[in-house]
Amino acid sequence: MRKVAVIGLGQTRFGQLWERGLTSLSVEAGVKAVRDAGISQKDVEVLYGGTMSGGLFANQEHLASKIPDYSGFKNIPSVRVEAACASGGLALRQAYLDIASGEHDIAVAGGVEKMTDLGNYSVTKVLATAADTDSEGIFGATFPGLYAMMAKLHMHKYGTTEEQMAAVAVKNHKNAMTNKYAQFRKEITVRDVMESTLISDPIKLLDASPITDGGAAVVLASEEKARELSDTPVWIAGSGHATDSISLHDREDILTLKATVEAAKKAYEQAKLTPEDIQVAEVHDCFTIAELLALEDLGFVEKGSSGRFTEEGQTMVGGKIPVNTSGGLKAKGHPVGATGIAQAIEAVKQLRGEAGNSTGAEIALTHNVGGSGGTAVVHIFRR
Amino acid sequence: MRKVAVIGLGQTRFGQLWERGLTSLSVEAGVKAVRDAGISQKDVEVLYGGTMSGGLFANQEHLASKIPDYSGFKNIPSVRVEAACASGGLALRQAYLDIASGEHDIAVAGGVEKMTDLGNYSVTKVLATAADTDSEGIFGATFPGLYAMMAKLHMHKYGTTEEQMAAVAVKNHKNAMTNKYAQFRKEITVRDVMESTLISDPIKLLDASPITDGGAAVVLASEEKARELSDTPVWIAGSGHATDSISLHDREDILTLKATVEAAKKAYEQAKLTPEDIQVAEVHDCFTIAELLALEDLGFVEKGSSGRFTEEGQTMVGGKIPVNTSGGLKAKGHPVGATGIAQAIEAVKQLRGEAGNSTGAEIALTHNVGGSGGTAVVHIFRR
Repeated sequence: MRKVAVIGLGQTRFGQLWERGLTSLSVEAGVKAVRDAGISQKDVEVLYGGTMSGGLFANQEHLASKIPDYSGFKNIPSVRVEAACASGGLALRQAYLDIASGEHDIAVAGGVEKMTDLGNYSVTKVLATAADTDSEGIFGATFPGLYAMMAKLHMHKYGTTEEQMAAVAVKNHKNAMTNKYAQFRKEITVRDVMESTLISDPIKLLDASPITDGGAAVVLASEEKARELSDTPVWIAGSGHATDSISLHDREDILTLKATVEAAKKAYEQAKLTPEDIQVAEVHDCFTIAELLALEDLGFVEKGSSGRFTEEGQTMVGGKIPVNTSGGLKAKGHPVGATGIAQAIEAVKQLRGEAGNSTGAEIALTHNVGGSGGTAVVHIFRR
Repeated sequence: MRKVAVIGLGQTRFGQLWERGLTSLSVEAGVKAVRDAGISQKDVEVLYGGTMSGGLFANQEHLASKIPDYSGFKNIPSVRVEAACASGGLALRQAYLDIASGEHDIAVAGGVEKMTDLGNYSVTKVLATAADTDSEGIFGATFPGLYAMMAKLHMHKYGTTEEQMAAVAVKNHKNAMTNKYAQFRKEITVRDVMESTLISDPIKLLDASPITDGGAAVVLASEEKARELSDTPVWIAGSGHATDSISLHDREDILTLKATVEAAKKAYEQAKLTPEDIQVAEVHDCFTIAELLALEDLGFVEKGSSGRFTEEGQTMVGGKIPVNTSGGLKAKGHPVGATGIAQAIEAVKQLRGEAGNSTGAEIALTHNVGGSGGTAVVHIFRR
């Protein structure tokens, strides 16, 4: 397997973009990434794109044909992948494998979702198709409800508090102040979170990531091409991907996302690194409890201690391991198919020294989850 | 890139299976393929699955997690790919690339679609999301309508007749008589086709493939594993994939599927073969005109001569190149995400000498199309 680098980054603004459609978001992100790489559309040999539900959200499947067509990548092989909210991370991984294998030399990996402006469906109903329709969705389970069960058990078992969860949201909103693409650039307090509308006890409105439109793309290149085209290549040092039971009730322990544990293990092994080596991380904070679980499952802290660790400020810029310096899903926004790529963009910016919240890191990790943990994709990047 | 073989085959019956759901179809196909390969579920290292629209057809996305979970492949990396009706062929290709690259040694590539028993949507409306929603679907274009335009122009330009198109359906129904998994096992005549209900002039009901539920899966293995596990490995000698504009009006020539031409070119080059070397082929006959176009775009006949070639019986078993010996999409059925895998199953059966319509072939080709030609995937198999 060959070495692979990220050599170009592109993203749209994240937010409720009522005037924008799925296609225009995709094209903007892809073309920006191509320009950032200093190449042109005709240099792109293959496209991997992640979208959770073009069908239900935007009445458009077959994006594998439509996006390269509209982006000026006509006739190239193009693959849409889907693993719910991990679709973007999965697109990155599949593009990485493609180039690592020697099949192609230059790829675009993108992600997009258009979640506002729906017709017949509610967003919550569409997102519920990432859970098990037969054993969860049909009984009315929603993602706030599923994550609320994890949060309640974490509180019961480890003494985690609602204020500790709120600290995740407060940090991520603060981080988003430096990210010009973020949906929310507004600081909030623990009290704001605690007093926000209750969604599914103990999850409140400000514990939850928002509904977002947005697109993101990166250009990947083989070692030879990366050294030829880029002065600032960022290398993919490790890539791991695993699945778990789609439904919560089928897991041995609902407080451990086994998919995260397994995906991280593979990525650490490939990169020959341990959790202690990671200097900055973008993790999947679809709800504040999800960031706490990620800190544990990625090996940054002992199981059960993530709440205290966060409250102490150890995941803030300047702390032991800065997490979600981009603002995370919570404040940057969570256009589900684009999220995994947007995480990679922040990681690469950190390593290039171009991030708003610069940490000077040389090793970064990204962690993208589908559903309540049915899929996880972990990548490790090095300068 | 390493050599890759198909070592196991599994499929469900194709048809209107009112008592079956998406998951049970997937599991049946996958488990049968694993058994046919003589391995067990725990030997499967990675899964690639093709489905056009789990969301719109079955209210279930995130099959990348659900299917390995329910199939006993728990925790493995699993990727859902989508390229409309070419989703199955694309799953095969991505699994092939994964093993060829050295990432894994044993993969399942599957495809599934549950198209009957819909709630809010009509099947035609869901299928229309494979065309360009912005420039085709929104104006009411349906796939019978799009292919009817191609058929009309082929008739006008080359003198192709409705009877010649009907001959495709007659042949494929005859072929399906030997396929116990086929949806229609009933011979028809040219007169039956000509007298069937007009759908979109000149396409009549019996020129069109049906709405079908079904699943199909194959087990792929690296050369080392294939030689260890199988006495009848069938090798993937060539794999090609290309895209084209999603909408018909953006093409230079609507009678040439450029995606097919490009994908075939790559597959022939990789296999070091020419169209003359292919001894049996499964091509994408979603409508009878589509089989005629495929014969031309794959290089089996000169542009414009496919109607006469078919009428002469050259694509029947015993003819110059037997096409769709399984019954094709027309008579075997067309569960869109499963079709590309079902084509591979027929190709492998032909090379193993296990096909109902045995041709004794040693080289076979499969050709899977998404939309009106926005995606094409071509594979060449050798004994």
